[in-house]
Amino acid sequence: MNEITSPTLLVDPRKCKKNIARMCEKASANNIKFSPHFKTHQSSDIGEWFREVGVHSITVSSVDMGLYFANHQWRDITVAVPVNILDIDKINKLAEAAKITLMVNFTEVAKALEAGLNNCVDVIIEIDTGYPRTGIKHDDYQAIANILEYIKVSEKLSLKGFYSHAGHTYNARGKDEISTIHGNSIKILNRLKGKFSAQYDPIQLSYGDTPSCSVMSEFPGIDEIRPGNFVFYDLMQQYIGSCKFEEISAIMICPVISKNTQRSEVVVHGGAVHFSKDFVPDANAKVFGKMVKLEQNGWSEEIEECILKSLSQEHGIISITNEELDNIQIGDLVGIVPAHICLCADLMRGYQTTEDGILNHILS
Amino acid sequence: MNEITSPTLLVDPRKCKKNIARMCEKASANNIKFSPHFKTHQSSDIGEWFREVGVHSITVSSVDMGLYFANHQWRDITVAVPVNILDIDKINKLAEAAKITLMVNFTEVAKALEAGLNNCVDVIIEIDTGYPRTGIKHDDYQAIANILEYIKVSEKLSLKGFYSHAGHTYNARGKDEISTIHGNSIKILNRLKGKFSAQYDPIQLSYGDTPSCSVMSEFPGIDEIRPGNFVFYDLMQQYIGSCKFEEISAIMICPVISKNTQRSEVVVHGGAVHFSKDFVPDANAKVFGKMVKLEQNGWSEEIEECILKSLSQEHGIISITNEELDNIQIGDLVGIVPAHICLCADLMRGYQTTEDGILNHILS
Repeated sequence: MNEITSPTLLVDPRKCKKNIARMCEKASANNIKFSPHFKTHQSSDIGEWFREVGVHSITVSSVDMGLYFANHQWRDITVAVPVNILDIDKINKLAEAAKITLMVNFTEVAKALEAGLNNCVDVIIEIDTGYPRTGIKHDDYQAIANILEYIKVSEKLSLKGFYSHAGHTYNARGKDEISTIHGNSIKILNRLKGKFSAQYDPIQLSYGDTPSCSVMSEFPGIDEIRPGNFVFYDLMQQYIGSCKFEEISAIMICPVISKNTQRSEVVVHGGAVHFSKDFVPDANAKVFGKMVKLEQNGWSEEIEECILKSLSQEHGIISITNEELDNIQIGDLVGIVPAHICLCADLMRGYQTTEDGILNHILS
Repeated sequence: MNEITSPTLLVDPRKCKKNIARMCEKASANNIKFSPHFKTHQSSDIGEWFREVGVHSITVSSVDMGLYFANHQWRDITVAVPVNILDIDKINKLAEAAKITLMVNFTEVAKALEAGLNNCVDVIIEIDTGYPRTGIKHDDYQAIANILEYIKVSEKLSLKGFYSHAGHTYNARGKDEISTIHGNSIKILNRLKGKFSAQYDPIQLSYGDTPSCSVMSEFPGIDEIRPGNFVFYDLMQQYIGSCKFEEISAIMICPVISKNTQRSEVVVHGGAVHFSKDFVPDANAKVFGKMVKLEQNGWSEEIEECILKSLSQEHGIISITNEELDNIQIGDLVGIVPAHICLCADLMRGYQTTEDGILNHILS
């Protein structure tokens, strides 16, 4: 850590492995398959920490990410975005390297796959249980029946089940709100399973955003969970109520390049090209991150009122208490807990650990 | 363009070179040095288009970016962020490869450079003329005099002048508001030059954000301009009033992966890992981009009411008119004019051109 001179993403393996173990145990306790989403860390090194606790199936957010992990001996991969039919050549390559599951929500996409696939693949149908992004609306039985029917008669597509991402938990604050969304989503999925199971192949239910999987302990009827962000957690998850501050396992380290005592601010080298521009919408400001102090083997507890309040391309402005300002000199390194670690990790393309190790990334 | 299957950043070289020529001519007409900021495109290929019109000095936003362009035969490089003194080894490497100018706003930083530099460098002092990020507040004469005095007696630092980034033009809308900020900033810089020039070395004035340099035609007393974004422009610049829609020279191409007729939406593969998460704050929504139709050698004119309204990691949701919705099928490619091209280009790490060429990027 003493050799860091520029913005660096730091992982505490102890905290990170604890997050992995906790989620893995929760899945085991519920007798549910655990297929963690690897889009957050995008690292084959961190992937091994999952393998060590018995994980063998994973979820990814692009075919390229699937190919990367297939290349690192992952053999059961779900690509959890609606199929981009222009990707057919890469999909065929991925299907040769691993047992894959694709998300198919439209008959025209199913037909394009049937025509273009070299091998059989499993498919999931995405159900919109209240988060309006992609997926078939849960009460559009006709659309669900149509795609089920097409899959049934197709030769290359084998039905695995229904999938839902209850992304509206990201707008929740606290366990009660998460619990309501969780309860509704699971009820909807089970109802659909009941409605269509007799007529079609056995239908499995795949579910699991980080807030639901972190806060809830029961998943009635669910066959698979696949949270991703929990591997690190971040400020957004703390605000939602998914984690405690001390469970966050990754922070940014940034050098201080400017101080302003009148405005009680420090400026770090660390901007939108390092953090991206997601923020937690707090009452008074956009919170892009929170400052912590670096310590021998990690970082300090939460410090109130030290907020990364603004980002330009390479600069980050931290609004800070006068007490902390006195302790910080230009050239110091400070820690920043990011608002949204998934985008930050994607930009940083690699990790340093509190144990002086290096962890790779698909883009490193 | 027919072979594109995944999110791709497309540059129209004709429009891009026109933007470059126009700005270059404006600098010439005012007898001002033109040191364009290369942080937007970060491409040695696009750098050559500047060289073709006689540009020999450039501005960058990190020492790493400076090293990349030095490696591509740029020999006059200003690193326009406050010096990170931990970067001293890389700074020495850069100073060996090119004539460099560093930004020094604090005496302690000047002292660290004096102690650590192997060679002499030019320095600029950043003046805060109303955009409160970094730089010495314009009326803090004592702080300005202190750093001028230190530079005067130092052996390794040679004063070049004052620098200001009037970043508050990004909050302006229309020529009048930009003109007011421009006028004030230039007046302040000239006053400071008058105040300190007799006592210190000749002081040059470096100035120039994209809105000011695009809209204004006169720069009294200014010795150098260094806008960056204008090379491509984007939706934010159009909203500010810096450019017309048809001057925007780069767009994203994204495959359509989902359609929702009830909500009048299409979803593309193209998310926060492609666009970043900057947006134009419009009256009714966050505008992350605007959809255009792809044409044989480029893209269509502006289409009203087709807005990229939401981004998650890999998904982008476009709110669209029913008329346009009818014309779009899953698997089609659509164009999207990004809200903020600098961050988008940083993420995309390379370009395709409308003339079927490829342009490199520091990260490609």
